[in-house]
Amino acid sequence: MSVERVSWRNAESSFDRDDVAVEEPLELRLNGKAISVTLRTPGDDEALALGFLWGEGILTRRAELISVEQVAENAVNAQVAAAVLERGGWQRNFYATSSCGVCGKASLSMIRAPGGVVAAASPLRPEMLLPLPAKARAAQEIFARTGGLHAAAWVDPEGEIRCLREDVGRHNAVDKVVGRALLDGSLPLGGQLLFVSGRAGFELVQKAIAAGFAALLAVGAPSSLAVSLAQERGLGLAGFLRADGMNVYAHPERFGLRGGA
Amino acid sequence: MSVERVSWRNAESSFDRDDVAVEEPLELRLNGKAISVTLRTPGDDEALALGFLWGEGILTRRAELISVEQVAENAVNAQVAAAVLERGGWQRNFYATSSCGVCGKASLSMIRAPGGVVAAASPLRPEMLLPLPAKARAAQEIFARTGGLHAAAWVDPEGEIRCLREDVGRHNAVDKVVGRALLDGSLPLGGQLLFVSGRAGFELVQKAIAAGFAALLAVGAPSSLAVSLAQERGLGLAGFLRADGMNVYAHPERFGLRGGA
Repeated sequence: MSVERVSWRNAESSFDRDDVAVEEPLELRLNGKAISVTLRTPGDDEALALGFLWGEGILTRRAELISVEQVAENAVNAQVAAAVLERGGWQRNFYATSSCGVCGKASLSMIRAPGGVVAAASPLRPEMLLPLPAKARAAQEIFARTGGLHAAAWVDPEGEIRCLREDVGRHNAVDKVVGRALLDGSLPLGGQLLFVSGRAGFELVQKAIAAGFAALLAVGAPSSLAVSLAQERGLGLAGFLRADGMNVYAHPERFGLRGGA
Repeated sequence: MSVERVSWRNAESSFDRDDVAVEEPLELRLNGKAISVTLRTPGDDEALALGFLWGEGILTRRAELISVEQVAENAVNAQVAAAVLERGGWQRNFYATSSCGVCGKASLSMIRAPGGVVAAASPLRPEMLLPLPAKARAAQEIFARTGGLHAAAWVDPEGEIRCLREDVGRHNAVDKVVGRALLDGSLPLGGQLLFVSGRAGFELVQKAIAAGFAALLAVGAPSSLAVSLAQERGLGLAGFLRADGMNVYAHPERFGLRGGA
């Protein structure tokens, strides 16, 4: 999906377009009943639904599947034998997600839950943000040993890391940072920045907004849904943060940059 | 956490130890009632619990929190004001996870759900697996444009990719591959291999076992729980797959390699 962006490299801004990975919710229905919502890249949705049912042990034999059908752009229904429903497991009312921001939202319409207000940031100088990936890497003790951890950090408007946490789950690393701020009495984190070592998907944008951050900075790529939610809710969103620059996908003014024409 | 491994580089095996990121389930309780299980890296668990409750909009003010306490090694209880419970949201019975393999498992004891039997692989020659990251990258059309996608692939014992799928969620990419095999009548995938472009956590091992794969090959690092589940259930597990070799953390015989002393 093509989106507008401000590419800021070597202190020069350019305005162009960028392709981002498409992320959209998919509702999974079992014999007509919605049992799960996952954030996925559209395509091969019937296979996704069946693979999920198989992995969860709900569907255990090919013969139990009567049919599978894309019943709407973002909904798939799997029709299965009565024996599957009788065996149970599907009533767990679980929710699949690429992390955990949409857990428990029972329908697609509930996914964009209200979050906290994004407070205005102090005027930032974007140059101050460029050393962040290197600073975060230096602070990541466990990653250095294992290569297996995501990091999230609360960063102040001067670009200093105030709190960094690591976890195997990127949403957990963010939750640890936000929860620590709650314990310290610092929530909401108006005017502050959230840094993540990986990609920026919908749930991280949602968590950033809920905590009141002014902007989300990612080393990796954003998803389409992350870009649209950040644009809509006033969150600054930057990806591909490197020592020489970054790409800004939403609200460049949050980083002290001018927007497009 | 330190684990044994077979490091196989430039056609030479060595037996040594490696640090892997610790992944363990955490049960989150709200006023004594279990409402969520997440796979996380232990540490700052109280903050994790509070950040999760905040991000989900269950806890909205600091004053609503009465106390938060680690009540067991892998369980945290948050005691909140009656008003929070009355407001609702927490009854959604949701399940947080770094992907979706533990969704809906209502207690820690259910996490290691039974999966399919891992069938014996044809004798593999590990050299055949080395080109996989390059082959997968060449086949990843969307990643090439966006830098934002995970890939999963069904690979046959000759090292050929039989089916590759991309998704913003790594577990979705695996579900798409497994679901496609179900539709094609190829499940269970005994003797076949599962390749993933990222890290290998618990849920991917669980999904690989459920689909009957003989081994899981990852470009990234494995987690501690992934290693122990693979060892226990007979799944071959390799990480850091590169053009010159890989590290094998469980069942090296699945890759045609000898185990340690």
